Amino acid sequence: MANLTEFSPADAIAVLSRTPATLNALLRGLPNVWVRGNEGKDTWNAFDIVGHLISGERTDWMPRLGIMLENGEARPFDPFDRFAQLKESQDKSLEQLLDDFARLRRENLAALQALNLQHEDLTRRGRHPALGVVTLSELLATWAVHDLTHVHQLSRVMAHQYRDTVGPWRAYLGVLYCTGHSAP
Amino acid sequence: MANLTEFSPADAIAVLSRTPATLNALLRGLPNVWVRGNEGKDTWNAFDIVGHLISGERTDWMPRLGIMLENGEARPFDPFDRFAQLKESQDKSLEQLLDDFARLRRENLAALQALNLQHEDLTRRGRHPALGVVTLSELLATWAVHDLTHVHQLSRVMAHQYRDTVGPWRAYLGVLYCTGHSAP
Repeated sequence: MANLTEFSPADAIAVLSRTPATLNALLRGLPNVWVRGNEGKDTWNAFDIVGHLISGERTDWMPRLGIMLENGEARPFDPFDRFAQLKESQDKSLEQLLDDFARLRRENLAALQALNLQHEDLTRRGRHPALGVVTLSELLATWAVHDLTHVHQLSRVMAHQYRDTVGPWRAYLGVLYCTGHSAP
Repeated sequence: MANLTEFSPADAIAVLSRTPATLNALLRGLPNVWVRGNEGKDTWNAFDIVGHLISGERTDWMPRLGIMLENGEARPFDPFDRFAQLKESQDKSLEQLLDDFARLRRENLAALQALNLQHEDLTRRGRHPALGVVTLSELLATWAVHDLTHVHQLSRVMAHQYRDTVGPWRAYLGVLYCTGHSAP
Protein backbone atom coordinates (compact mmCIF):
# COMPACT_ATOMS: atom_id res chain seq x y z
CA MET A 1 0.00 0.00 0.00
CA ALA A 2 2.83 2.36 -0.88
CA ASN A 3 0.47 5.06 -2.12
CA LEU A 4 -2.10 5.01 0.67
CA THR A 5 -1.29 8.46 1.93
CA GLU A 6 -1.76 9.87 -1.55
CA PHE A 7 -4.90 8.00 -2.56
CA SER A 8 -7.95 10.20 -2.65
CA PRO A 9 -11.34 8.67 -3.46
CA ALA A 10 -12.18 11.95 -5.24
CA ASP A 11 -9.48 11.20 -7.84
CA ALA A 12 -10.93 7.75 -8.57
CA ILE A 13 -14.45 9.21 -8.70
CA ALA A 14 -13.22 11.86 -11.18
CA VAL A 15 -12.45 9.05 -13.63
CA LEU A 16 -15.49 6.92 -12.78
CA SER A 17 -17.90 9.81 -13.29
CA ARG A 18 -16.45 10.63 -16.75
CA THR A 19 -16.44 7.16 -18.32
CA PRO A 20 -20.09 7.08 -19.44
CA ALA A 21 -19.70 10.37 -21.34
CA THR A 22 -16.37 9.20 -22.77
CA LEU A 23 -17.92 6.02 -24.16
CA ASN A 24 -20.93 7.96 -25.36
CA ALA A 25 -18.73 10.40 -27.31
CA LEU A 26 -16.56 7.61 -28.68
CA LEU A 27 -19.27 5.14 -29.69
CA ARG A 28 -22.81 6.52 -30.06
CA GLY A 29 -23.94 6.54 -33.67
CA LEU A 30 -20.77 4.94 -35.08
CA PRO A 31 -21.11 2.78 -38.20
CA ASN A 32 -21.29 -0.98 -37.59
CA VAL A 33 -17.73 -1.56 -38.77
CA TRP A 34 -16.59 0.00 -35.50
CA VAL A 35 -19.13 -1.32 -33.01
CA ARG A 36 -19.63 -4.87 -34.33
CA GLY A 37 -16.06 -5.63 -35.38
CA ASN A 38 -13.94 -7.66 -32.94
CA GLU A 39 -10.41 -9.10 -32.97
CA GLY A 40 -11.35 -12.62 -34.05
CA LYS A 41 -13.05 -15.71 -32.63
CA ASP A 42 -14.14 -15.42 -28.99
CA THR A 43 -13.03 -11.79 -28.69
CA TRP A 44 -15.18 -8.83 -27.73
CA ASN A 45 -16.56 -6.00 -29.82
CA ALA A 46 -17.60 -2.56 -28.53
CA PHE A 47 -21.08 -3.89 -27.84
CA ASP A 48 -19.72 -6.69 -25.63
CA ILE A 49 -17.39 -4.32 -23.77
CA VAL A 50 -20.17 -1.88 -22.81
CA GLY A 51 -22.27 -4.87 -21.75
CA HIS A 52 -19.42 -6.06 -19.54
CA LEU A 53 -19.13 -2.64 -17.89
CA ILE A 54 -22.88 -2.79 -17.17
CA SER A 55 -22.44 -6.21 -15.50
CA GLY A 56 -19.73 -4.69 -13.32
CA GLU A 57 -22.07 -1.93 -12.17
CA ARG A 58 -24.76 -4.48 -11.36
CA THR A 59 -22.82 -7.25 -9.66
CA ASP A 60 -19.20 -6.32 -8.99
CA TRP A 61 -18.02 -3.00 -7.59
CA MET A 62 -20.63 -1.65 -5.19
CA PRO A 63 -21.90 -5.11 -4.15
CA ARG A 64 -18.32 -6.06 -3.25
CA LEU A 65 -17.84 -2.84 -1.35
CA GLY A 66 -21.01 -3.68 0.58
CA ILE A 67 -19.74 -7.17 1.43
CA MET A 68 -16.44 -5.66 2.56
CA LEU A 69 -18.14 -3.14 4.86
CA GLU A 70 -20.50 -5.71 6.35
CA ASN A 71 -18.30 -8.78 6.59
CA GLY A 72 -14.68 -7.68 6.32
CA GLU A 73 -12.40 -10.60 5.46
CA ALA A 74 -14.86 -13.17 6.80
CA ARG A 75 -16.92 -13.54 3.62
CA PRO A 76 -15.21 -13.68 0.22
CA PHE A 77 -16.76 -11.64 -2.58
CA ASP A 78 -18.98 -13.54 -4.99
CA PRO A 79 -17.01 -14.41 -8.14
CA PHE A 80 -17.68 -12.01 -11.02
CA ASP A 81 -19.12 -13.49 -14.23
CA ARG A 82 -17.03 -11.91 -16.98
CA PHE A 83 -19.34 -13.28 -19.64
CA ALA A 84 -22.75 -12.35 -18.21
CA GLN A 85 -23.24 -9.68 -20.86
CA LEU A 86 -23.07 -12.23 -23.65
CA LYS A 87 -26.57 -13.32 -22.71
CA GLU A 88 -27.90 -10.16 -21.05
CA SER A 89 -27.10 -7.61 -23.80
CA GLN A 90 -28.05 -9.42 -26.96
CA ASP A 91 -31.49 -7.89 -27.49
CA LYS A 92 -30.41 -4.29 -26.85
CA SER A 93 -28.98 -1.62 -29.10
CA LEU A 94 -25.62 -0.05 -28.34
CA GLU A 95 -27.46 3.17 -27.57
CA GLN A 96 -29.59 1.38 -24.95
CA LEU A 97 -26.46 -0.11 -23.40
CA LEU A 98 -24.78 3.31 -23.23
CA ASP A 99 -27.87 4.72 -21.51
CA ASP A 100 -28.05 1.78 -19.09
CA PHE A 101 -24.37 2.14 -18.22
CA ALA A 102 -24.68 5.89 -17.60
CA ARG A 103 -27.71 5.40 -15.34
CA LEU A 104 -26.17 2.55 -13.34
CA ARG A 105 -22.88 4.38 -12.89
CA ARG A 106 -24.70 7.51 -11.72
CA GLU A 107 -26.71 5.45 -9.21
CA ASN A 108 -23.63 3.64 -7.94
CA LEU A 109 -21.64 6.83 -7.46
CA ALA A 110 -24.59 8.35 -5.58
CA ALA A 111 -24.70 5.25 -3.36
CA LEU A 112 -20.93 5.53 -2.79
CA GLN A 113 -21.23 9.19 -1.76
CA ALA A 114 -24.11 8.29 0.56
CA LEU A 115 -21.82 5.91 2.47
CA ASN A 116 -19.86 8.99 3.56
CA LEU A 117 -16.63 7.01 3.82
CA GLN A 118 -13.96 8.48 6.06
CA HIS A 119 -10.20 8.37 5.59
CA GLU A 120 -9.87 5.49 8.05
CA ASP A 121 -12.32 3.42 6.02
CA LEU A 122 -9.84 3.26 3.14
CA THR A 123 -7.83 0.56 4.92
CA ARG A 124 -10.83 -1.68 5.61
CA ARG A 125 -10.28 -5.14 4.29
CA GLY A 126 -12.20 -7.74 2.34
CA ARG A 127 -11.43 -11.07 0.71
CA HIS A 128 -11.29 -11.54 -3.04
CA PRO A 129 -12.19 -15.14 -3.97
CA ALA A 130 -8.96 -15.60 -5.95
CA LEU A 131 -6.61 -12.76 -4.94
CA GLY A 132 -7.04 -12.92 -1.17
CA VAL A 133 -7.07 -9.89 1.12
CA VAL A 134 -7.73 -6.53 -0.55
CA THR A 135 -8.51 -3.08 0.84
CA LEU A 136 -11.28 -0.62 0.19
CA SER A 137 -8.89 1.86 -1.45
CA GLU A 138 -7.65 -0.91 -3.75
CA LEU A 139 -11.22 -1.67 -4.74
CA LEU A 140 -11.97 1.97 -5.59
CA ALA A 141 -8.72 2.35 -7.54
CA THR A 142 -9.40 -0.89 -9.42
CA TRP A 143 -12.91 0.22 -10.35
CA ALA A 144 -11.35 3.28 -12.07
CA VAL A 145 -8.50 1.36 -13.74
CA HIS A 146 -11.01 -1.26 -14.91
CA ASP A 147 -12.74 1.56 -16.83
CA LEU A 148 -9.38 2.55 -18.32
CA THR A 149 -8.48 -1.02 -19.27
CA HIS A 150 -11.69 -1.19 -21.30
CA VAL A 151 -11.11 2.20 -22.96
CA HIS A 152 -7.69 0.78 -23.84
CA GLN A 153 -9.35 -2.36 -25.23
CA LEU A 154 -11.98 -0.38 -27.17
CA SER A 155 -9.38 1.75 -28.94
CA ARG A 156 -7.45 -1.42 -29.80
CA VAL A 157 -10.49 -3.33 -31.10
CA MET A 158 -11.53 -0.36 -33.22
CA ALA A 159 -8.02 0.16 -34.63
CA HIS A 160 -7.88 -3.56 -35.50
CA GLN A 161 -10.62 -3.02 -38.10
CA TYR A 162 -8.16 -0.86 -40.11
CA ARG A 163 -5.03 -2.99 -39.55
CA ASP A 164 -4.63 -3.53 -43.31
CA THR A 165 -6.28 -0.32 -44.48
CA VAL A 166 -3.50 1.87 -43.04
CA GLY A 167 -0.91 0.24 -45.36
CA PRO A 168 2.76 0.99 -44.57
CA TRP A 169 1.79 3.39 -41.75
CA ARG A 170 1.12 0.27 -39.69
CA ALA A 171 4.76 0.43 -38.59
CA TYR A 172 4.11 3.67 -36.68
CA LEU A 173 0.80 2.84 -35.00
CA GLY A 174 1.52 1.23 -31.64
CA VAL A 175 -2.09 0.29 -30.97
CA LEU A 176 -1.91 -2.23 -33.85
CA TYR A 177 0.84 -4.11 -32.01
CA CYS A 178 -1.07 -4.38 -28.72
CA THR A 179 -1.86 -7.99 -27.89
CA GLY A 180 -4.25 -7.20 -25.08
CA HIS A 181 -2.05 -8.26 -22.19
CA SER A 182 -4.61 -10.70 -20.83
CA ALA A 183 -4.33 -11.59 -17.19
CA PRO A 184 -1.77 -14.34 -16.54
CA MET B 1 -4.72 -2.60 -50.38
CA ALA B 2 -6.72 -5.72 -49.53
CA ASN B 3 -9.58 -3.69 -48.10
CA LEU B 4 -9.89 -1.03 -50.77
CA THR B 5 -13.33 -2.12 -51.92
CA GLU B 6 -14.56 -1.91 -48.34
CA PHE B 7 -12.93 1.36 -47.28
CA SER B 8 -15.37 4.22 -46.95
CA PRO B 9 -14.09 7.69 -46.05
CA ALA B 10 -17.33 8.17 -44.10
CA ASP B 11 -16.24 5.42 -41.67
CA ALA B 12 -12.90 7.14 -41.02
CA ILE B 13 -14.63 10.51 -40.65
CA ALA B 14 -17.05 8.96 -38.14
CA VAL B 15 -14.07 8.32 -35.84
CA LEU B 16 -12.25 11.57 -36.63
CA SER B 17 -15.29 13.70 -35.89
CA ARG B 18 -15.83 12.05 -32.49
CA THR B 19 -12.31 12.25 -31.05
CA PRO B 20 -12.47 15.84 -29.76
CA ALA B 21 -15.63 15.10 -27.75
CA THR B 22 -14.13 11.81 -26.53
CA LEU B 23 -11.02 13.57 -25.21
CA ASN B 24 -13.13 16.35 -23.78
CA ALA B 25 -15.30 13.87 -21.85
CA LEU B 26 -12.28 11.88 -20.69
CA LEU B 27 -10.00 14.76 -19.65
CA ARG B 28 -11.65 18.15 -19.06
CA GLY B 29 -11.61 19.10 -15.40
CA LEU B 30 -9.68 16.03 -14.22
CA PRO B 31 -7.40 16.42 -11.17
CA ASN B 32 -3.70 16.94 -11.94
CA VAL B 33 -2.78 13.38 -10.97
CA TRP B 34 -4.39 12.26 -14.22
CA VAL B 35 -3.39 15.01 -16.64
CA ARG B 36 0.16 15.76 -15.45
CA GLY B 37 1.25 12.20 -14.61
CA ASN B 38 3.35 10.39 -17.23
CA GLU B 39 5.07 7.00 -17.44
CA GLY B 40 8.55 8.18 -16.46
CA LYS B 41 11.42 10.19 -17.93
CA ASP B 42 10.86 11.42 -21.49
CA THR B 43 7.32 10.01 -21.70
CA TRP B 44 4.17 11.96 -22.42
CA ASN B 45 1.33 12.98 -20.13
CA ALA B 46 -2.24 13.78 -21.23
CA PHE B 47 -1.25 17.39 -21.81
CA ASP B 48 1.56 16.37 -24.21
CA ILE B 49 -0.71 13.94 -26.07
CA VAL B 50 -3.40 16.53 -26.79
CA GLY B 51 -0.65 18.92 -27.89
CA HIS B 52 0.68 16.28 -30.28
CA LEU B 53 -2.80 15.78 -31.78
CA ILE B 54 -2.98 19.55 -32.33
CA SER B 55 0.37 19.48 -34.16
CA GLY B 56 -1.00 16.74 -36.41
CA GLU B 57 -4.00 18.89 -37.32
CA ARG B 58 -1.72 21.83 -38.13
CA THR B 59 1.11 20.19 -40.03
CA ASP B 60 0.46 16.55 -40.83
CA TRP B 61 -2.82 15.14 -42.13
CA MET B 62 -4.48 17.73 -44.36
CA PRO B 63 -1.19 19.33 -45.47
CA ARG B 64 0.01 15.90 -46.58
CA LEU B 65 -3.25 15.21 -48.36
CA GLY B 66 -2.79 18.52 -50.18
CA ILE B 67 0.78 17.60 -51.23
CA MET B 68 -0.53 14.23 -52.45
CA LEU B 69 -3.28 15.80 -54.56
CA GLU B 70 -0.99 18.44 -56.05
CA ASN B 71 2.25 16.53 -56.53
CA GLY B 72 1.47 12.80 -56.40
CA GLU B 73 4.59 10.74 -55.75
CA ALA B 74 6.88 13.46 -57.09
CA ARG B 75 7.24 15.41 -53.84
CA PRO B 76 7.68 13.57 -50.53
CA PHE B 77 5.66 14.83 -47.57
CA ASP B 78 7.46 17.09 -45.14
CA PRO B 79 8.66 15.07 -42.12
CA PHE B 80 6.34 15.39 -39.10
CA ASP B 81 7.82 16.82 -35.90
CA ARG B 82 6.54 14.47 -33.19
CA PHE B 83 7.84 16.78 -30.47
CA ALA B 84 6.58 20.17 -31.71
CA GLN B 85 4.01 20.31 -28.91
CA LEU B 86 6.69 20.24 -26.26
CA LYS B 87 7.45 23.87 -27.07
CA GLU B 88 4.10 25.00 -28.51
CA SER B 89 1.78 23.87 -25.71
CA GLN B 90 3.65 24.82 -22.59
CA ASP B 91 1.87 28.08 -21.85
CA LYS B 92 -1.65 26.76 -22.37
CA SER B 93 -4.09 25.02 -20.08
CA LEU B 94 -5.42 21.57 -20.93
CA GLU B 95 -8.81 23.18 -21.47
CA GLN B 96 -7.32 25.55 -24.07
CA LEU B 97 -5.65 22.61 -25.81
CA LEU B 98 -8.92 20.66 -25.93
CA ASP B 99 -10.67 23.70 -27.42
CA ASP B 100 -7.87 24.23 -29.97
CA PHE B 101 -7.95 20.58 -30.99
CA ALA B 102 -11.75 20.60 -31.43
CA ARG B 103 -11.62 23.73 -33.58
CA LEU B 104 -8.74 22.56 -35.77
CA ARG B 105 -10.31 19.12 -36.29
CA ARG B 106 -13.64 20.73 -37.23
CA GLU B 107 -11.89 23.02 -39.73
CA ASN B 108 -9.88 20.17 -41.22
CA LEU B 109 -12.91 17.92 -41.65
CA ALA B 110 -14.76 20.82 -43.33
CA ALA B 111 -11.78 21.27 -45.68
CA LEU B 112 -11.78 17.54 -46.41
CA GLN B 113 -15.49 17.56 -47.25
CA ALA B 114 -14.96 20.61 -49.47
CA LEU B 115 -12.49 18.60 -51.60
CA ASN B 116 -15.45 16.44 -52.64
CA LEU B 117 -13.22 13.41 -53.14
CA GLN B 118 -14.56 10.71 -55.43
CA HIS B 119 -14.13 6.97 -55.13
CA GLU B 120 -11.36 6.98 -57.75
CA ASP B 121 -9.39 9.51 -55.69
CA LEU B 122 -8.89 6.92 -52.94
CA THR B 123 -6.13 5.22 -54.94
CA ARG B 124 -4.17 8.43 -55.58
CA ARG B 125 -0.61 8.12 -54.43
CA GLY B 126 1.90 10.16 -52.51
CA ARG B 127 5.36 9.62 -51.07
CA HIS B 128 6.04 9.36 -47.36
CA PRO B 129 9.59 10.51 -46.53
CA ALA B 130 10.39 7.24 -44.72
CA LEU B 131 7.71 4.72 -45.72
CA GLY B 132 7.65 5.32 -49.49
CA VAL B 133 4.52 5.18 -51.62
CA VAL B 134 1.22 5.49 -49.79
CA THR B 135 -2.35 6.05 -50.99
CA LEU B 136 -5.00 8.58 -50.11
CA SER B 137 -7.19 5.91 -48.48
CA GLU B 138 -4.22 4.81 -46.36
CA LEU B 139 -3.71 8.40 -45.23
CA LEU B 140 -7.37 8.79 -44.20
CA ALA B 141 -7.38 5.44 -42.40
CA THR B 142 -4.11 6.32 -40.62
CA TRP B 143 -5.48 9.66 -39.47
CA ALA B 144 -8.31 7.78 -37.71
CA VAL B 145 -6.08 5.04 -36.25
CA HIS B 146 -3.63 7.71 -35.08
CA ASP B 147 -6.48 9.11 -32.97
CA LEU B 148 -7.14 5.62 -31.60
CA THR B 149 -3.47 4.97 -30.83
CA HIS B 150 -3.45 8.09 -28.67
CA VAL B 151 -6.71 7.17 -26.90
CA HIS B 152 -4.97 3.85 -26.23
CA GLN B 153 -1.92 5.71 -24.90
CA LEU B 154 -4.02 8.08 -22.77
CA SER B 155 -5.83 5.23 -21.03
CA ARG B 156 -2.48 3.53 -20.40
CA VAL B 157 -0.77 6.68 -19.05
CA MET B 158 -3.71 7.37 -16.75
CA ALA B 159 -3.87 3.77 -15.50
CA HIS B 160 -0.12 3.91 -14.79
CA GLN B 161 -0.77 6.46 -12.04
CA TYR B 162 -2.63 3.75 -10.07
CA ARG B 163 -0.29 0.84 -10.87
CA ASP B 164 0.46 0.33 -7.15
CA THR B 165 -2.80 1.65 -5.77
CA VAL B 166 -4.83 -1.25 -7.23
CA GLY B 167 -2.89 -3.77 -5.10
CA PRO B 168 -3.36 -7.46 -6.02
CA TRP B 169 -5.96 -6.59 -8.68
CA ARG B 170 -3.02 -5.56 -10.85
CA ALA B 171 -2.93 -9.15 -12.13
CA TYR B 172 -6.29 -8.70 -13.86
CA LEU B 173 -5.81 -5.26 -15.42
CA GLY B 174 -4.29 -5.70 -18.87
CA VAL B 175 -3.70 -1.99 -19.41
CA LEU B 176 -1.04 -2.08 -16.66
CA TYR B 177 0.99 -4.58 -18.72
CA CYS B 178 0.95 -2.52 -21.91
CA THR B 179 4.44 -1.40 -22.87
CA GLY B 180 3.31 1.02 -25.53
CA HIS B 181 4.43 -0.95 -28.58
CA SER B 182 6.57 1.87 -29.89
CA ALA B 183 7.33 1.79 -33.58
CA PRO B 184 10.26 -0.46 -34.45
